[in-house]
Formats: sequence, C-alpha cells, structure tokens
Amino acid sequence: MNIVEFFQQRAGSWISHRTSHHLIIKKAEDGTSEINLEMLSLPDPQVTELCLQYGFDPALALCGAKVTWDGSMAWDKDKVEDKHQGFTIFVPIADGDDLQQGKLLRHQGYAERAPVVGRYVMSPDDILSLITEYDTVYSEEKFWFPSPDLCLRAGLTTGLSNVASFCTETRKPTEQIIDQPDQTKDVAPVKHFSFLGG
Amino acid sequence: MNIVEFFQQRAGSWISHRTSHHLIIKKAEDGTSEINLEMLSLPDPQVTELCLQYGFDPALALCGAKVTWDGSMAWDKDKVEDKHQGFTIFVPIADGDDLQQGKLLRHQGYAERAPVVGRYVMSPDDILSLITEYDTVYSEEKFWFPSPDLCLRAGLTTGLSNVASFCTETRKPTEQIIDQPDQTKDVAPVKHFSFLGG
Repeated sequence: MNIVEFFQQRAGSWISHRTSHHLIIKKAEDGTSEINLEMLSLPDPQVTELCLQYGFDPALALCGAKVTWDGSMAWDKDKVEDKHQGFTIFVPIADGDDLQQGKLLRHQGYAERAPVVGRYVMSPDDILSLITEYDTVYSEEKFWFPSPDLCLRAGLTTGLSNVASFCTETRKPTEQIIDQPDQTKDVAPVKHFSFLGG
Repeated sequence: MNIVEFFQQRAGSWISHRTSHHLIIKKAEDGTSEINLEMLSLPDPQVTELCLQYGFDPALALCGAKVTWDGSMAWDKDKVEDKHQGFTIFVPIADGDDLQQGKLLRHQGYAERAPVVGRYVMSPDDILSLITEYDTVYSEEKFWFPSPDLCLRAGLTTGLSNVASFCTETRKPTEQIIDQPDQTKDVAPVKHFSFLGG
C-alpha cells in the first residue's frame, strides 16, 4: 500500500473512539469523534494554494485529502469553547521517486501559530507513521487497517506534556448515530490475550 | 533493530497502563499491570524443552525470554479468580536467514487449551508485530519504543469478541509502586495534536 492508496482506504466517515494516556499525571481520558475524509480531485485550488505556500510545485502533490472532524473529550463536557471541530487539508509529497516516505503538507481551517510540514513513512506492512514537530512539541502517530472498515491509530505527543493516545475507528454505517444507549449491562468481561505479558 | 535487540530493549520491569476498547459493546476498560522481561542465557532448559515440544532444533532459538506479569483490569476488581498473573517463555525462530520475521514459540505457566505458535514481523522502522491464531481467535499486536524507557503496544483481538487494546508502558524506576495517589486534581486538560483528524 502506498500513501495514496492509504488515503483512499481512509476515505469516508468514521466513528473514532479515542483514549489518551496522560503519562505525567497518570490518567486516562476518553472521547468520541466523527471523522470524515474526502479525496480531492486534482488539480484542486486548495491543494495548489497549499503547495505554493510551502514552495512546492503543485504537480508534485500525490493527492489531496480534506479531513473534517467533530467531537469532544470527556474533560471538555459542557465547555462549548473546547469543542474539537474543524477541517484540515493534507497533501503528501514524496521524497523523489520513493513514494513510501516524504513530506505531508497541512493546512488547517483555523489560525495556527506556525505552518506545519510533517513527514510520512509507509512501512512494508502497511503502517503509516506521521511525524511532526512544531515549536517544542514532537508528535508521532501510527495508523493501520486491521480490516477495511477498522482503522487503529496510536501515537505519542511529547513536549509541554507527554500524551500517548489510541483511537479505534470504525467506518460509519449510514444510519449510525454517535450517542448509542449503554448496552453493557450483564455483559461479562472478555479475557485479553497478549504476547509479551499483560 | 532485530527481534533479539527488541527483546533486549524490552528487558526489565515496566508499569503497563492498558485500555481496552470493546468494539461490539462500545465500552472502554482500563487496567494496570507490572510486567517483567528477563532474557534467558542460552542454552536454557526451558528454551530447549519448548523448542523440542514444537519440533524445532533448539540451536535455532535466536534467544529466550521469560515474561512475568501481575495486574488487573477494572472489571476484575474484588474477583480474586480473575487476577491476571502468570509467566510465559518466548522463543523466536527466524524464517531461514531472514531474522526480521519468523515463528514465536510460547509456553505459558498455566494450562492452555492448545499450544500456540505465533508469528513475528519486525518492520524496518522497528515496529514489532506479533500475530497469533488459536481456535477461532485471531490476535495481532504491534509494539514500538518511542524512547528507550517507553513502549507502546496496540492491537486487536477478533473472534468470540472484538477487542482493540492499547498499552502505554513505562520502565519502572526501582522505587516506583503501582498504586500512586491521584495527582490529577486541578490539572488542565491537554490539547491533542493529530494528523488525519481528531
């Protein structure tokens, strides 16, 4: 799988269940988001603008993707101003002929302190790693698809704080609604099977 | 990094914070474990026995590791019989000359329905994938070290149930105790930075 195929696989609407592990304060936090990725047809004016902004020839854009999301974390409840909502345009540009790694240009739909150019690496076993540094913050996230309708994401952000996060993302059936009734009553815990302990 | 170097990096005592996402019932569960990995000096009688049990020449063992763990998940509280505690011996055997993938033999210190031979794959960017199938259960877990004293694990078990799990594991300082007082009061939430939405 190359980066374009990865984006194509990621296209669509997803329900994302995220858990963040705050390493310093040793606390977990849960949240739910709805995420949508739409592939843009090239040439696209937003992709062209983003490439030019970073000094790249728009013809180098492997593809363009628009990601929108809407969600909240547990700590944000009842705080309207903390609602996580927005969109981003992503454009991958390969390192020369090597499609498996390169730069990932990003444009966010709201003000940001500094423009961000991240790096992407596709491993031979179809794990996408996204690495970005801005100011004093370093972030690395890995994405993979155990099945076409399930995406797992896990990563670490270090800097002002150290937060490891994990998202289980399932493709959204057309009729699905985020807030489902609690169906956990009388359900027995499931034994965890793991190598290397735990 | 090859599989032996990975085990060496993993040697020592770790505090593991695990979150499980139960995909069908849409519920998260947290737990804490203490995990210890000790490299065995070859030849080791436990490694030899495990190789012979699976029909492999003990000389093919790349290394041997004994993993012990002790912990519990939230749902197990007050249930002595559900305490997660045990040990496992792991022995990787490469696919011929290719050290980056092969079989992972496993012996558990308690009764198991069927013997388990898993597969390991080391990716070029040092992500270890462990895959195992037993009965109708399929499990795949990925491990990587963002830093020498931090290991992230994420994976999926499918079969009777579908459970995605994520562990943040920090190397244990000598004096650390699992049950620390809650230090989260008055700590502000941390903004999550992520590519591809969320």
